[in-house]
Amino acid sequence: MTATITAFERSPDRGNGLARDMRLRWAFEEVGQPYEVRLLSFEAMKEPAHLALQPFGQIPTYEDGDLTLFESGAIVLHIAERHPGLLPDDANARARAIMWMFAALNTLEPPIFDRSLLTILERGRPWYEERLNALDETIRKRLESLSHHLGEADWLDGAFSAGDLLMVTVLRRLQSSGILNGYSNLAAYIARAEARPAYQRAFEAQRAVFTAAAG
Amino acid sequence: MTATITAFERSPDRGNGLARDMRLRWAFEEVGQPYEVRLLSFEAMKEPAHLALQPFGQIPTYEDGDLTLFESGAIVLHIAERHPGLLPDDANARARAIMWMFAALNTLEPPIFDRSLLTILERGRPWYEERLNALDETIRKRLESLSHHLGEADWLDGAFSAGDLLMVTVLRRLQSSGILNGYSNLAAYIARAEARPAYQRAFEAQRAVFTAAAG
Repeated sequence: MTATITAFERSPDRGNGLARDMRLRWAFEEVGQPYEVRLLSFEAMKEPAHLALQPFGQIPTYEDGDLTLFESGAIVLHIAERHPGLLPDDANARARAIMWMFAALNTLEPPIFDRSLLTILERGRPWYEERLNALDETIRKRLESLSHHLGEADWLDGAFSAGDLLMVTVLRRLQSSGILNGYSNLAAYIARAEARPAYQRAFEAQRAVFTAAAG
Repeated sequence: MTATITAFERSPDRGNGLARDMRLRWAFEEVGQPYEVRLLSFEAMKEPAHLALQPFGQIPTYEDGDLTLFESGAIVLHIAERHPGLLPDDANARARAIMWMFAALNTLEPPIFDRSLLTILERGRPWYEERLNALDETIRKRLESLSHHLGEADWLDGAFSAGDLLMVTVLRRLQSSGILNGYSNLAAYIARAEARPAYQRAFEAQRAVFTAAAG
């Protein structure tokens, strides 16, 4: 059975692949599995039918037979556990790949997502500059550590994994900020990921949704 | 071989079980596995020996033979995968338990942790009240959804799981805020978890570290 995911009918990121359905699309493409997409308006996301699948009223969800999941990280892990291509066979390497999934979502994403919200919602408020500087300082500390860990390697731990997939989707949110300019190996890491055919297929698929809605 | 974790030599939470080593201690106790603890000063956390294990200079870490992990969520999942007691046998129920682990760390924890940081670091700043109100509004929305999902059930999805373990450690951070007063089923959920013998053993073990350091 083909799994069905949900995505924004009209993504706030204007088709730039920053919405969290991109993670699932990319994972499906990496493991060579088809998927179907059900698009939701912002109104539909808050209606009982969707809340029964996703109690927090967000996207994406994943439905496959009698299993429904939400949380993009959990869904990427579920896909990676069921199909080869996103987790190493070696048990220790597999544990470390999962560790990088959590690091992406729990150590890098919170301040990076906060920065996005701040620049969208609080521009012009009295505290804007000071809070932006504080967040940028936190983000730079994390990027400095990540850049030092990555060094000259292609990926975070051996072969490309679900950890890299999530990390790149988190770091891409900084692309318009200029912050990544200070970390050339991280910029190259993102570019290396974006050059993957699976990434490109996923990106085009989510962009087509926005283009159709805007057309 | 007994795994070794790291923890604060003197936890900023004064032994209240809010530091992230508590999650690992509790997981070990739930599955009945011994563990050893290596305590670190704030200075030691930033030294090369620790940064080689944890590139972001945080606690906890997990060392077992030639495997080193960081990220408390990843370590709890690793423990739960290797020993029975924290993940259901049924494949779909297992996927949902892991989904709740990600929900705890990625949907609930970010605004709750931001609130903690705000009340510690920014009390008295001009924007303090406005930002506290904004965070409380976000947190209440999430709690409302979580409370509605939990309903009258004991745990988030069937039997107690690693998802409940992480969720409770996240929610406990709100106990001094008064916010939980509006959600009696969530307060009861936390109390139910805290009453578990495994929780109590873990709590006493981390409290003993603080008591010894303060003595």
